Amino acid sequence: MQNITVAVDAMGGDFGPRVTVPAVVQALSHFPELKIILVGKQGDIFEHLSDFGYSSLSKLAEELGDRIEIVHCDQVISNSLKPSQALRKSAGSSMNTAIEWVASEKADAVVSSGNTGALMALSRRHLNLLPGIERPALVSALPTKTGNFTWMLDLGANVVSSEEALFQFSVMGSALAEQHLERQPRVALLNIGVEDIKGVERVKRCAELLSQTQSVNYIGYIEANKLFDDIADVIVCDGFTGNSCLKASEGTAQFFIEKLTSSIMSPSIKGWIGRKLFSGLLKELKLLNPDQYNGASLLGLRGIVIKSHGSADVTAVVNAIGEAVHEVKRRVPSRIRDRLEAVLLERH
Amino acid sequence: MQNITVAVDAMGGDFGPRVTVPAVVQALSHFPELKIILVGKQGDIFEHLSDFGYSSLSKLAEELGDRIEIVHCDQVISNSLKPSQALRKSAGSSMNTAIEWVASEKADAVVSSGNTGALMALSRRHLNLLPGIERPALVSALPTKTGNFTWMLDLGANVVSSEEALFQFSVMGSALAEQHLERQPRVALLNIGVEDIKGVERVKRCAELLSQTQSVNYIGYIEANKLFDDIADVIVCDGFTGNSCLKASEGTAQFFIEKLTSSIMSPSIKGWIGRKLFSGLLKELKLLNPDQYNGASLLGLRGIVIKSHGSADVTAVVNAIGEAVHEVKRRVPSRIRDRLEAVLLERH
Repeated sequence: MQNITVAVDAMGGDFGPRVTVPAVVQALSHFPELKIILVGKQGDIFEHLSDFGYSSLSKLAEELGDRIEIVHCDQVISNSLKPSQALRKSAGSSMNTAIEWVASEKADAVVSSGNTGALMALSRRHLNLLPGIERPALVSALPTKTGNFTWMLDLGANVVSSEEALFQFSVMGSALAEQHLERQPRVALLNIGVEDIKGVERVKRCAELLSQTQSVNYIGYIEANKLFDDIADVIVCDGFTGNSCLKASEGTAQFFIEKLTSSIMSPSIKGWIGRKLFSGLLKELKLLNPDQYNGASLLGLRGIVIKSHGSADVTAVVNAIGEAVHEVKRRVPSRIRDRLEAVLLERH
Repeated sequence: MQNITVAVDAMGGDFGPRVTVPAVVQALSHFPELKIILVGKQGDIFEHLSDFGYSSLSKLAEELGDRIEIVHCDQVISNSLKPSQALRKSAGSSMNTAIEWVASEKADAVVSSGNTGALMALSRRHLNLLPGIERPALVSALPTKTGNFTWMLDLGANVVSSEEALFQFSVMGSALAEQHLERQPRVALLNIGVEDIKGVERVKRCAELLSQTQSVNYIGYIEANKLFDDIADVIVCDGFTGNSCLKASEGTAQFFIEKLTSSIMSPSIKGWIGRKLFSGLLKELKLLNPDQYNGASLLGLRGIVIKSHGSADVTAVVNAIGEAVHEVKRRVPSRIRDRLEAVLLERH
């Protein structure tokens, strides 16, 4: 069995070690091949490790051997820092140190729930872009009505994107989805109509680029009301639109779940019967909330960087670590590099 | 009682007179002050009017007097036409003729479910923009968790918008919402984060403009997962983002409703109990689907133009006509003009 080492930024996200530490302990029991480098304030980390009986380094070593290593860092990058500020203030921070472990090839991937802009800027600094890529993109898998997944990008790594960047996102998303589907993914561009005349110029020009490319199975435009219809395997848009659409879906899902919950949680006979019969359905609906899926990948880098949601809970961070494990196994960055080379050869 | 005359494009939308004719008949019984100018192919209109016993003009006159007038037009503007093509081919079309009725002040408002781009281009040609407005915007009321509404614009009249256009949308949206709320509305800009550093430049610059304006109660950025949280009364964004967010919400709502329906519609005892318990809730949830709300207004013109959804059903078109009646009563275009003048005075 190949060992997989994941560096986890213990301090990132709204809850820091309170969530990352239990998630790491769970992930270690889920994935026998996993080794974790847990980066952050050692005192805070042990405070939460002690809940699992690991109150000291020696106790930790006794039970988990070399499967977990704590790397102490004093600094934390706050959510309010601009990427440029994060770059200046990054020295000694948990996020920066975790990325450096990947850059020096001592870890295979990094997972952080911290500041997205900072994660992108620091990843670019330490890991470099794949040849042919201008900007990384944030991608995540959305649930669909059929039970399959659709990968959507960019979810907010960039705020605006040229047609060339959108084209690169399409190639990268296709290469990633293929590692899950094991067939050529259907790639669509998000637009506000399906007719050729609709939308902004850069989307129309990207559609032209994609139509001329054999390496991507481009199927045309898709509208955001079809995100969950399993019409496309990969949906490409700029980061402002992708982030907003994903959040609009989350908000709508939340609205519906609250409505349903208050209906079956009412202290009436009706509520009691509802709870007995439909709590399973409610759980299922909660899982349809895109927010529950976690582990967005930053694609386009020479290393694997997984961005976990700032408000991610333990299960969600375990999912994010699971995505890191999957991408390491499937060697996603080198698959993307191969695909980019094929497209470049085709175009030139 | 003030008479209100609404010109309805009978041919617009996916279903044409099959939906618009029954909607007009319903609206006439809902709104006693309403007079309808129904514009389209007379043969098609009477085919559907005959379902209500109105098989000829004389029968119509007998029952409804002068409350309905049929204006025959041979041409229909298709959904695939670009706005520029629609302008060239508009002569004799139902949409163009309906708008001309408003331009000549023989009608107070127009309602159409047809091609949005064409409706905008033709409305601009015939009705002209209010002074100080560069581009009209499409606005609609979304339901929220508290039962109140939030007005969102632009929903797709434009694909890109400058900071000045976003500022104008904020002023117009605020003036419209005030006619419903009768207090100063809270206005927010849609962004992908709430921190000052987030987002695209034109949104940041619009935030600065709004912060300097007394006439608008600007409360800051809002993210799309809060659309339904009744945090803002007016949410402003560019048309590409607004259209995509609204559609993402529609798609998510549809996904949840299908899941819940298939669960309570199963032919089991559990399904039977579920139907007894939850058919009311399901109806309520369906109404939360933003798609069910209909009647987006095209703001910024010297006349009232209501865009009904292309796939609108009878109830939805009745709602659209209802919105037209409301805006005529509240003299929305002149309220917006007054507000724009106040802002211009304040700024210069």
